[in-house]
Parts: sequence; C-alpha cells; structure tokens
Amino acid sequence: MALDFEKLIAHLKAQGFIFQGSEIYGGLANSWDYGPLGAELKYKLKNQWWNFFVRRNKYNIGIDTSIILNTNVWKASGHLGNFNDPLIDCKNCKSRFRADKLIEEKFPNVNAGTFSNEELENYIKKNNIKCPKCNEITFTNIRQFDLMFKTFQGPIEDDTAKVYLRPETAQGIFVQYKNTQRSLRKKLPFGVGQIGKSFRNEITPGNFIFRTREFEQMELEFFFSPNDKYNWFDHWLNEVNEFLMNELKINKNNYVIREHDKDELSHYSNKTVDIEYNFPFGRGELWGIAHRSNFDLSQHQKFSGEDLSYLDPETNEKYIPNVIEPSVGVERLMLALLCDVFYEEKINENDTRTILKLPIKLAPFLVAVLPLQKKQSSFSINLFENLLKNFDATYDETGNIGKRYRRQDAIGTPFCITVDFDTELDNSVTIRDRDTMNQDRVAIKDINLYLYNKINN
Amino acid sequence: MALDFEKLIAHLKAQGFIFQGSEIYGGLANSWDYGPLGAELKYKLKNQWWNFFVRRNKYNIGIDTSIILNTNVWKASGHLGNFNDPLIDCKNCKSRFRADKLIEEKFPNVNAGTFSNEELENYIKKNNIKCPKCNEITFTNIRQFDLMFKTFQGPIEDDTAKVYLRPETAQGIFVQYKNTQRSLRKKLPFGVGQIGKSFRNEITPGNFIFRTREFEQMELEFFFSPNDKYNWFDHWLNEVNEFLMNELKINKNNYVIREHDKDELSHYSNKTVDIEYNFPFGRGELWGIAHRSNFDLSQHQKFSGEDLSYLDPETNEKYIPNVIEPSVGVERLMLALLCDVFYEEKINENDTRTILKLPIKLAPFLVAVLPLQKKQSSFSINLFENLLKNFDATYDETGNIGKRYRRQDAIGTPFCITVDFDTELDNSVTIRDRDTMNQDRVAIKDINLYLYNKINN
Ligand SMILES: [Zn+2]
Ligand SMILES: [Zn+2]
Repeated sequence: MALDFEKLIAHLKAQGFIFQGSEIYGGLANSWDYGPLGAELKYKLKNQWWNFFVRRNKYNIGIDTSIILNTNVWKASGHLGNFNDPLIDCKNCKSRFRADKLIEEKFPNVNAGTFSNEELENYIKKNNIKCPKCNEITFTNIRQFDLMFKTFQGPIEDDTAKVYLRPETAQGIFVQYKNTQRSLRKKLPFGVGQIGKSFRNEITPGNFIFRTREFEQMELEFFFSPNDKYNWFDHWLNEVNEFLMNELKINKNNYVIREHDKDELSHYSNKTVDIEYNFPFGRGELWGIAHRSNFDLSQHQKFSGEDLSYLDPETNEKYIPNVIEPSVGVERLMLALLCDVFYEEKINENDTRTILKLPIKLAPFLVAVLPLQKKQSSFSINLFENLLKNFDATYDETGNIGKRYRRQDAIGTPFCITVDFDTELDNSVTIRDRDTMNQDRVAIKDINLYLYNKINN
Repeated sequence: MALDFEKLIAHLKAQGFIFQGSEIYGGLANSWDYGPLGAELKYKLKNQWWNFFVRRNKYNIGIDTSIILNTNVWKASGHLGNFNDPLIDCKNCKSRFRADKLIEEKFPNVNAGTFSNEELENYIKKNNIKCPKCNEITFTNIRQFDLMFKTFQGPIEDDTAKVYLRPETAQGIFVQYKNTQRSLRKKLPFGVGQIGKSFRNEITPGNFIFRTREFEQMELEFFFSPNDKYNWFDHWLNEVNEFLMNELKINKNNYVIREHDKDELSHYSNKTVDIEYNFPFGRGELWGIAHRSNFDLSQHQKFSGEDLSYLDPETNEKYIPNVIEPSVGVERLMLALLCDVFYEEKINENDTRTILKLPIKLAPFLVAVLPLQKKQSSFSINLFENLLKNFDATYDETGNIGKRYRRQDAIGTPFCITVDFDTELDNSVTIRDRDTMNQDRVAIKDINLYLYNKINN
C-alpha cells in the first residue's frame, strides 16, 4: 500500500516528532523543529552513525569544526563563485524560478542540472516554456544566485568582515587534515568523520524535511594513498549499504544504488554513486558516495601555501592522498527511516493501529510503564523511576489500557510493561511486544535482564 | 600549583583536542575547532548532560529547534534592539572599544556592565580614561552594536528577507512550548532541554574557548505552576551542583556559587545564581541558574497572538507557567573540566608525566592496546578489533612502552592493555591503571568483565 505522506506528516506533528518551525509566528519558509520524540530519534540516529563510522570503526576518527570558517576556505573549495543556482525572472509577473527546475517540470526526462546557462536559456526559448504563474513567455536572462548564507563578523559590515555559513561539513575536515593526521600520528589509510549543521540558501526547498535551508550532515572523508590498489570506493559503498540494512533495518526494496553518468560527475570526481530512496514524493538522493581524487587537499595547499602532502613512512614517497566521501543528511535519513517504519495495521474488522516499527536501538523510548488502574499508580511510578536508571523509559496512566498501548505503538515504543492486580501478589508484570502484541509474564527482578536481552538481540 | 594556561593550550593542540580554527589560512579571530579527542570529549560531555537533565530525568523531555527562527521571535524576546554592546570609538586612532570593558580594565572593582550609556560616558569623562592604544582622550559618544549575526534568506537582500542566527537556544523551547506540552500531554511541572549552537557577534571574544562567537549551549527551561510552593530554584541549583561534583567530578574547591545582586538582575528575573569557576585567567561564569518568571511565554503570547496559558486539570485555573532556567555553555564546561584534570606529576627526580585525569565515562578512549614488541602486533590488533565492538579503544605500537604509556596518560586513557611475551602462553594481559599506574594481570576471557566493572564503579 502506498504511503500517505500527508498522513505521516500529521502523525509526526501530533505525536511530538516534528513541528513546523516558528509555527506560532506563522512559520518560517520550510523550516522544521524536532519535538521531544523527533529530537531523541535524531540523537540516536546520529549516535548510531558515529559509532558505526567513527567511534567503533578501526580506520576512522572524528572531528568537530566550526560553522563559520575563514572565507579563503570557500575560495579554495570552489564554493565562492560556483556554488549557486541559475535564476530566471518572469518580466510580466516578477516570479522567480530556477531555470533547470523550470525545464524539468515541463520535461521530466531532461536532466537540465548539467546544462550551462546558455544551454538553459536556449532550451527555454526553443521549447516555448511559459511562466507557470502567468503563462507569459517574457523571461530575463539567467543570473547566478549565491547558495551560501552571508553574514558579517565584528562591528563593521564591510568586505573584510564578510563571512559565510558552511554549505557542507567536509571542508572543515580538509582544512584540519594536517593537524588531525599529525596530532594522532595517523598512517594512511584513515578516515575523518564529522556531524554538524550546514546551511544552503536554496530557493526551492521542500518536500517536508527532505530539502531545507538549515540541515545536518554526517560526512566521512576517507584518505588513502594513490598507490593503494584496494577498492576503497566499493568498501565504503558496502559499509553504507550494511548500515542501512543491518543497523537501520531499512527495507532494501525501498532504495536503489545508482552510479552517476559521465556528464553528471564533478570535474574532479572519477566516480560517484547515489543511494536513492523511494520517498512518497518520488525517488530522492539519500546518500552520496564520491571519489573526490586529491582535489580538495590540492586546492587548500594551493590557496593556503601550506604543504598538505603525506610522507609515506614505508616508501619515502610524498603525495597528496586521494579521498572517498560518503555523505548523508541527518534529516533525509530520518525521513527515509520514518517512511520505512510507518504502518497502518488492520487488527480486525473494526480496529486499525498506527505503528512506527523503529529498530529497538532507535526508538525514542525503549519501554513504557502503564498501571492497569489508578490504584497501581504509586507502585508503577516507583518501577518507572527505577527503570529510568538504566533504560529510556516513559510513564502513562491516562485513559484505558488499550488506548495507551495504541499510543505507545504510534511512537514506536518496543515494550509496554503493565502493572496489574496480580503484580503485588506474584511480583511480576506483563511485558507486551510492539510488533507481535504478544505478552510475557516477567518477574520484577528479571525485567532488566529481559530488556537487555531484547536490546542485544 | 597554579595551572599554566599556555601549557594546557599547547598540550591540547599537540594531542589533537583543540586546534585554532582555519589555522592553515592564518585562523579566524578566536575560533577553535575540536580535533579527534576534543570532538569525542565534547560528545561525551553533551551525552552526559542529556542523560542527566533530559533522557533519564523523570520530569524532563528534550527538543531540537532551528538556529534560524522567524524574526518576530527576537522582537518578542527583546533580543532585537536590546541585545547589544555599548561601543565607543577613539577619534584619534580609530580604535573601537566596549565602553564598559574600557572602564573595568582601568578600574577592576567597578561593575560597569550595569551602567546606562549616559553613566558610561560620564564615568569615562570624569575619570579621564585614555585610549589604551594611543593614549589620547578623544572618544565619540556610545553607539549600540547588535550582537546577533544577521543574514538574508532567499535570493533578495531586503528587510523582509532579513533573519538572525539565534543568540541562545532557550527561545526555541519557548516558541514550541505549546506543541511540546500538547503532543506529549505533559502536566506541570516539567522541563524541556536543548543542546545546540548559538552565535553572538561579540567584539571582545577571548580566553581560548571561554568566550567565542560561535558556541554551543545546553539549556533547560523548567515550567511550573505559580501556585507550586516547592522550591524549584534550589532543586535545579542542587542538580547542577550534583552534576558538576558527581558526574564530572569537578573539585568543589575550584568553583563558587554566587547570587546576583539586585542591580545585576534582568528586569524580569527575581533570582539568578551564577556558578563561577576559577579559570587560570580569573573567575568566570560557568553555569547560570535564573528564575525567569513567566516573562518569555507572556511575551510570545503577546507578540504571536497565540494563547500560551496552561489549563490546570486539577484546579481548572488558567495561567502562564513560571520558568527556572539552568544554562551552560558546552565549551566553557569542557574548559573547566580540562583545567580541573590537567596534572603534571613528578614520578621521580628525573621523570614527570602529563596526565588528564578525566572521569572514566568522559575519556575519549577507555582503553589502549599496546603490543610490548612488534612481534605481538597481529595478536594485539586482533584483540583491539575485538574490544572495539564493545568499548572505545585505540591501538599504538610506535615507540617504547614507557613512551606509549605517557602518551595515553596525556590524553586521559584510563586503561592500557599490554600484550607481552607471556600472553600467548598464559592467555592473559597486563592492564595498567592511568591514575595509580598499578598493573593487573587479567585473563583475556575476563577483560570485558574487568572493564565493565571499572566503568560501572
Ligand atoms: Zn509570470
Ligand atoms: Zn586611540
């Protein structure tokens, strides 16, 4: 059954996952805030990435660099001057569009993202593409629009004070490559991972949290010798695939691995693969794995004047390492995950439950404590507070027990512990499984072990 | 012995904790990047705060709101127009100063931060304060300087596109208060915590990572009924104190708790307490605990037109909750911690070791695996990779064993596992304790248990 996207978005708002940004002030174009459950899910997702790709990976280490960098960084990386959208205005109604999107909306099979400005203008003219707002054909020429957010540091707003919010976390890794390699005496091959906010002043953000101006990235830059014949590209593509399948348990039928054609590649990349997820609004890029050659470090060496080469301790050769970059957006990954686990399950003719089948380690709460009746409240609160020492727990005593089970299903809580009439007599509780709805009777002294076993299975 | 601040800073750079921001480009005024060990320490510090104040706290939940908010938020909060520095220029040499700092540098006992602009100007004139740069007395009048970073969202740079980078995370919590409370059906009292970047365009940042323009905050806004007679202020002050002493194990002789005088209080606050740490450069604010009354929610209700009051389910009364806010900067807390655990320890007449006595749960690596000689490498690498499944481990085979112990001491690794001649014969290793330098012989099959016991002690 096709996923109802509007239903999912409403569900995520109602359950405290994702709110419209600045909603009480009428919002702020395409900005989203993460409520208590969304914030927790996001933390767990980032932590899982960090564990898998950084903390518990034998090759890699991490870093945390600033959002505002020296402006020369963006000159070297090519972002200043290049990183921008081709904009076109309708002279009649003054609407503004991205020229490539204007073409692709009319001709979905054309890949206008690879066109030069001249090609874009010619294509629009030749095909008589009209303004989608007013239907006139009176477009201006294309002008470029800088995708980086600009601000001023210090009290004076002049050119020397102009700085930018990073459009990607990767450059921070390259700029600190030498300090990182030296201070930890790392030998090639090794990778450096980073999680952090990036900003792109997109003129067409959209599709809920898929494309936003403010977003969070998880990027790994993996450095290796040009003489290294091992296929590191496939190595990291496999790792990404394993992360999606085994850690996040995303259904492998819901995404495809697509290699870029020659004409889609950046001039410095000799191979790029996108993992594309089947979102409700269409197929969209989820994770990019790019071979960046030695482009970035070479550019920074050139622009900074610092020697960024590596002296191979075995061959005594000096070279600038090659780089493989797996890069993913946190919000996009979270959206793919949420689309993957959102189910409306028919239980019987009159009953349906909404359920988030999140992996146990990612669920905002592992366990909910529910007294069957008010008279078990104080016992249950005690149990809840004890569980909280070791587990992510929540407590709910409002409404009938069926309603409370549904509520926990709706936010993805894997286990519900019900304290009932018999609990004080037999010192046991009922533990209900979210997915199977089976119930186990478990002695109170065994609850911790029961839950640890479930986590580690 | 007094801490040598320059030595600590050099140590943190050399060991991969903290690098100058954009260093290869000559830096960017007072910006700092966190290397592999600093990034890991920062993550663990944030995680510990999140566990203590949010995830495992029975009252509280979390949130993650945007850095860029609707501009009306800052009108309501009073940041637009108020949140700024009093600047003064020397007419002779064109240098620019903060007027209050100019006074306080000359008269350290004066608290000029509470002066009005007129009082500042008069004080400077009356006391014949000279320009510190050129020694002339030819100052302009004071003009205010906006502390918020400004940028433009969308393609056009006009007033309607003007947005700001948040100067604090707190307002995101207030703006989403209603959505949060409703979606989780929270009853008062409850708190909402948030960790995230904030930006303040300070003209006098400094003291290493103590005051920077880009920084990270951990803020809790605790909401409670105006009829609630429990002393929530002292409750949260105690929790903060407990966190510092028991979780971070900061020496309680190194900080003081200072209540603000009447004339230091914001107009809406009836009580504020600062926890001040004895940094090497002097006493500095570490953690602020403020009673904010119902100021913020009332302002947002007024400016947004949304009803932000709470309907008490027991008394049927409607009111806007009061707020207690414990607020701390991540980098400041990390600096206090690093100052607290940095030791140069004389072992004997000819030998000194530098050591970071970090709490076990905060150390970037829990354990290092060290082969005594090259011939134990492959066995040791195997052991390292196995440990990595459960623990934050590192591996080092370069240099003599004494040097390698010192290296792990210097980055705070609590345990070193040495694989030696006997290991393959008796299936055991030596585990050295960072602080006592005692060594235990431990069977390989018992290593995990040994480490788990150490972590949980
Ligand atoms: Zn038009
Ligand atoms: Zn002067």
